Formats: sequence, C-alpha cells, structure tokens
Amino acid sequence: MKATGIVVEYNPFHNGHLHHLQQTRIKTNSDIIIAVMSGNFLQRGEPALVDKWTRSKMAVAAGVDLVIELPYAFATAQASDFAKGAIFLLDALKCHSFCFGSEEGSLEAFQETYNLLLTKKDEYNTAIASYMKKGISYPKALNEAYNEISEATTVRLVDLSKPNNILGYHYIQAANHLNSDIKPETIQRVVANYHDDALKTETIASATGIRKLLFEGQKLSEVNAFMPSTSLLGLTEWESNNKSFGSWEQFYPALRLLIIRSSREELGQIAEVTEGMENAIWKAAKTHTNFQSFMQQIKSKRFTWTRIQRMLTHIYTDFTWNQLREIDFPTYIRPLAMNKNGQAYLQSIKKDLQLPLVSRVAASKKDTQLQLDIKAADLYYLGLQSSYGESMVGSDFRIAPIIE
Amino acid sequence: MKATGIVVEYNPFHNGHLHHLQQTRIKTNSDIIIAVMSGNFLQRGEPALVDKWTRSKMAVAAGVDLVIELPYAFATAQASDFAKGAIFLLDALKCHSFCFGSEEGSLEAFQETYNLLLTKKDEYNTAIASYMKKGISYPKALNEAYNEISEATTVRLVDLSKPNNILGYHYIQAANHLNSDIKPETIQRVVANYHDDALKTETIASATGIRKLLFEGQKLSEVNAFMPSTSLLGLTEWESNNKSFGSWEQFYPALRLLIIRSSREELGQIAEVTEGMENAIWKAAKTHTNFQSFMQQIKSKRFTWTRIQRMLTHIYTDFTWNQLREIDFPTYIRPLAMNKNGQAYLQSIKKDLQLPLVSRVAASKKDTQLQLDIKAADLYYLGLQSSYGESMVGSDFRIAPIIE
Repeated sequence: MKATGIVVEYNPFHNGHLHHLQQTRIKTNSDIIIAVMSGNFLQRGEPALVDKWTRSKMAVAAGVDLVIELPYAFATAQASDFAKGAIFLLDALKCHSFCFGSEEGSLEAFQETYNLLLTKKDEYNTAIASYMKKGISYPKALNEAYNEISEATTVRLVDLSKPNNILGYHYIQAANHLNSDIKPETIQRVVANYHDDALKTETIASATGIRKLLFEGQKLSEVNAFMPSTSLLGLTEWESNNKSFGSWEQFYPALRLLIIRSSREELGQIAEVTEGMENAIWKAAKTHTNFQSFMQQIKSKRFTWTRIQRMLTHIYTDFTWNQLREIDFPTYIRPLAMNKNGQAYLQSIKKDLQLPLVSRVAASKKDTQLQLDIKAADLYYLGLQSSYGESMVGSDFRIAPIIE
Repeated sequence: MKATGIVVEYNPFHNGHLHHLQQTRIKTNSDIIIAVMSGNFLQRGEPALVDKWTRSKMAVAAGVDLVIELPYAFATAQASDFAKGAIFLLDALKCHSFCFGSEEGSLEAFQETYNLLLTKKDEYNTAIASYMKKGISYPKALNEAYNEISEATTVRLVDLSKPNNILGYHYIQAANHLNSDIKPETIQRVVANYHDDALKTETIASATGIRKLLFEGQKLSEVNAFMPSTSLLGLTEWESNNKSFGSWEQFYPALRLLIIRSSREELGQIAEVTEGMENAIWKAAKTHTNFQSFMQQIKSKRFTWTRIQRMLTHIYTDFTWNQLREIDFPTYIRPLAMNKNGQAYLQSIKKDLQLPLVSRVAASKKDTQLQLDIKAADLYYLGLQSSYGESMVGSDFRIAPIIE
C-alpha cells in the first residue's frame, strides 16, 4: 500500500481541507492518506476550537485514513520545528511522499528557494541578524533578508511572506535534513489568503475566518456552507457536550491566574519567553481582565502575535526552556483515529517501525513528550471551564484510538 | 493611650467575637483594641468567606479600633508560627497586653501548662516522636504526649485537645519567647465547642457553623441572629458585589488546574507538602472533579484535614519550602482599617515603631512577605471566578487603609 502524508490542524476541517485531501490522493495516486495533526494546542499558540478527539474523528469521517498526533513540543513550536517533527513522523510512518498546500503551488519554486538559501546561507544569516537589530520581528527580518538575497535571481522563487509557503519551505528543509527518500508534493491552496474572513457567498473559507464567525456568536448553521456535513456533525456534537468553543478569551481567567501565581523569574524560564517579555506579561495580567486587552498591552514590534501566543501557551502548560532544549525528534507514533484502511496499513508496517507505537498511553507514560501531551490535553479541558471539560481530564488514558 | 491586642480571623465576625471584644475592653481597661487579622487565606488552610477589606470593615464597625494584616506566611502557618507572627506584631504595636478567647478561661492554667512543658521539654519531645512513629497526626501525637507527661501533675492544666486552648498555649509561648513585657489575658469562650453547628434558637454560633449554613445555601437572613447588624451589612454588601462566598469548593477548578500543571517534583517543593503527599495530591486531582471527593481521596491518618488544606493553600499560591525557611518574623505593620481612635493611636506610636508602617503597598513592594500578601490576595480574587473578583485583582495597590 502506498501512503502519502499531510500535516494538518483541522481547526476545524473545512471544504479547503477536503479539496486538499482529495487532490492529494489524485496527485500522488496513494491508497492511504496519513495526517499528522496537532493535539489540543496549535502552532499559532492557541487552544483548539474543539479537542483532538473530535478533530481526528472529523478528519477520518472526511476521508483521512489515519490520524497521528503531532506531539505538543512540535505542534506548538515555530515553523522549522513544527515541520521537523511532522515530516519526521510521516517518514517514520513509511510514507513515500508528503503533500502540502501552498499559496505558491509549484514544487520547483520551493526547491529553487531551498537551494538558493542553502547556497547563500551565510549571507542570508548575516542579513537576518542585521534586520533583527532594527527591532523588527523574526519573520519580518527573514523576509527582508530573503528579498535582499533573491534580488538578482532569475528563477521562480517562493513568496515567503505567505504563511503556507513558509510552512512549505520548512517541510522541504525538514525532508532534506532527514536524508530520507520521502518525496515532497504541493497543491495550490484554493483560498487566496490565509487570513481571509469568511464570505457568506462562498463555499471555501479559511479556518481563521470560520473561527472568527463562531467567536462572533454565529451559529453552526451560519458556517455550514464552508465545511462537509461530517464536520458540521462533529462540531454539533461538541457543542452539545460543551456549549462553547476553545479560545484564548475563554482560557484567559485560567491563564491570568497562572501568570499572577508565577514570579517574573519563573515566567522567564518558560520556553520562548525572552527579552523582558516576562515582565510585560506579568504586569499586563495584573490589570487586564480580558485576553484582547491583555494582548494589546503586551504586543510588540519585536514579536509576532503568534510568537507571543506561543509564549502564553507554554506558560499555560508550564513548558520551560530547559524542557524545550531536551526535545530533538518525536519519540513515538500515536494514532488518534483511523478507518479500516488506515488500520490495515498500520498493521502492515507495524513490525518495521523504528518508534514505539502508542495505542495505550498508560504503557508509555514515562515518555517525556507523551507526558507533555497528556498534561496539555488535561489543561485544555480544564481551560474550557465546563463540566464536560472537567469530565474529560485524563481522557488520554481512557480513549483508545478511534476506529471508524 | 492603653492598647490591647487580639488575634482574629473574623470569618465572619459574629456575636461570639463581639462578646470577646467587649469583654477584652472591660477586662483590660483599654482605650484601644488592635486586631491582628489574617488576609484572604486562613489558618485552617482555607480561602476566607469574604475578603480582608470586607472583614476589616466589619471589625471596625463592630468596635475594633485598628485592624492590622497578619502576613500570609504567618496567617496560613501551623499554630506556633501563626501565634509567633501575631504576638510579635501586637508587641511591635506597643500593646500592653493581648487577650485571647479559650475554652479554658483561666490564665493561670495556661502558665502552669507552659511551665510544665518547658520543664519536661525533652521528655515531651521524646514522647511526641514515639507517638508520631505510630503513624498518627502531629496534633494527636502532641496530645497523647501531653497526657502522658501531665499525668502526675496536680495543678490545673489546660485541655490541649481544644482548638482555642492550643492557640492560646502558643500565644503564651510566643510572648515568652519574645522576652517582651506584653501581658497575656484570656476570656472563656461562650460557645462550648469550636466545631459546633449553628442552632437556630441561639444567638451565639461558631464561625464554622455559620459558614456551614451559608454553604448549605441558607440566606443571610437565616444567619443574622448570630451576628451584629454591622456584620450582616458587610456580608450583604459582599453578596451584592460577588454573589457567592469564598470556599475551597468554589476554588477547586483553579486549584485542580494548578496541581495538574505542576510536576510531582514541583508539588514536593511546596511548603508543608511532605511524605509523598505530592503524589497523592497530583493523582487525586487527575480524577476528582469536586473538592470534597478530592479531599476524601487524599485524607490520611498522618495529617489533619487542616494541615492538608494548608498544603493546598500553599500550592494555590506557589509558596515553597524555600520561601518558608526564609521567614522569621513579620517585616512590616500594615493597617487595613481603623476608626478615629485607632488612627490617633497609630499616630501617637508612629515615631517609635521598629517596623515600617505600610499604608501604601507600592512604597514597600520589594518586601518579600508583602509581595506574598499581594499575590495571595490577587489569587483569592481570581479564585472567586466572578467579574467582581477579576476587578479586585491589584486592589492592594488601590485601596488605602479604610478609616471609618
């Protein structure tokens, strides 16, 4: 059986994801699609709209054969580590290829870009450092440096100001670093812009746009045009259990408690917290009673909103610089959900796996990365501040991989 | 002006407290009554029913001239340290005497008891250690040892199985250790038993009994017989702001989040957490969704309920063994509320004070004990999980000592 991997968050699964899933199957002519998916916290440093169980069920219902959890330490990391963890897992799962959505759409452009940055590595890094000194954010410095060194190039290069292109570049880089035979593919995204708001006349909207509508208080019936019925079903089930969707605004009282309980020194030891952000965060928590005003207070030119949210995610889970430094590659393969085909595939590769296959977490509970996943999941449920959330604490121990 | 000190929690202020206050004034013939009062967390290791501002206002309204905050590190400590901090502050405030309520009622019995235990110190400690080895709680071991060494004594001794007698003993001990001229007095408590439930036909009920009625959902009108109208007014005002009263049951979701976020190693570094209780606490939090069932799970013969609650209080505020070891005596005098007489008294002793007088916390915010008081207060407000609580974070910086 030929398997292709995709890297997803599905927050929530929508028609754009469905398009990517179907096109991936066609383009790679694969029997099996394996999705490596974030758990309850995401790469933008946010709690997920709905938990990993609900999202992995929606994925399988929409056609993914096998969903594997991307461990917390990678799922909430900057793009390069996020990509490194995901591609490593897809390779470990014997995928012959992986296929990512991008604004770019041409794999050749990604490869040219990768080659250019490899050749001009020193020049690139010098330029990044000099832009950083001007006090702008890391992604902006990357982009300026990239524009500088690519000026004289005539081949088609990727526009690295686009979020999915950036991720794509890191996937390519991760695959190259792995020294593996896994073959990259890309499909152009249908939505032109990642941050687009959802438009009611369309059937494709970004997950960001859909979340925005939901947080503005729109009913599920107002967003159902943007997603397959399987997703609507999943979200409806979640809503009947939990009433609300996960968001920082909802988690803020708990986050605020954790910040105020910490000393500034302790906050400075949390992963990604740097350059005095511990003071800004601590002070803002003392006076701001909602997340939006708290963020307005601490936002800075130096850090992207996403980077700051990742700091907050790590404060929320008590994930420290010391723990981050210990992380290298994922240490296990943890299936969350699968269909019969995914199950058969997993069975077929089981004996050749180089990593432990975790279907019962109790058996692997000494694994540091897995402990972190379990803790992050539990803290997510408590952040929901609902009796459903309270009842879901410890569910990693109770829920076996879902087989649809 | 002649001042007498009392040590109080007023959780809430009731007719028994009023009796003690009035009798103290008569017995000591004092112009000024100074109450050293716990902040938002109490000696039984519990969040207070209502905050320190409300409780100190109720105290002054009922006749106390000056309310001073007992710093968190002493207010939530075992009896000997609680007493040490409180008596030290009353002495620092130039009180010529202090007067405590006790089941015993005779000061002579306290002094005989103190002398006996001083004389038989080694014998007493050996007996305590041998009882502890049998796996009973420290207070039980103290009591058994005490019974053993007092067997042959003919003078009247204090019954140290009674909670107010125990505190009284520690006040006497603290005063003796201080080597100060402060004179102890005691008044027999009107309520026979500290743990008595409130009876509707009486006008005196213990604070425990009153809290129990309130937590059972009784209206304030059902407990007003047990307290002066000034207290009813204070509690009514609190209820109109905050809807509910502080309790562990209410704080449990936040406590649970903090426990699950911590590693067992971190819990073991929290003050008073010892002998594997970090494991019991961590495990119980994973599965128990309410405070009562959580406590049922972790209670042990080795520790009193109160001692375990103190562990939880310190987990809630992140107060560690290392911090506890640094604590010696209170480092400041912080008035919370006063009447004109109290204000005049404070004015008259101001120049002779050996400790800084803190009326604006901003000016003393580098003091470790004060930082802890501010943090504990803020975390109390967040534990209330209400918009009133959220708005009260940082109130230590905004509220000046209340002058009635």
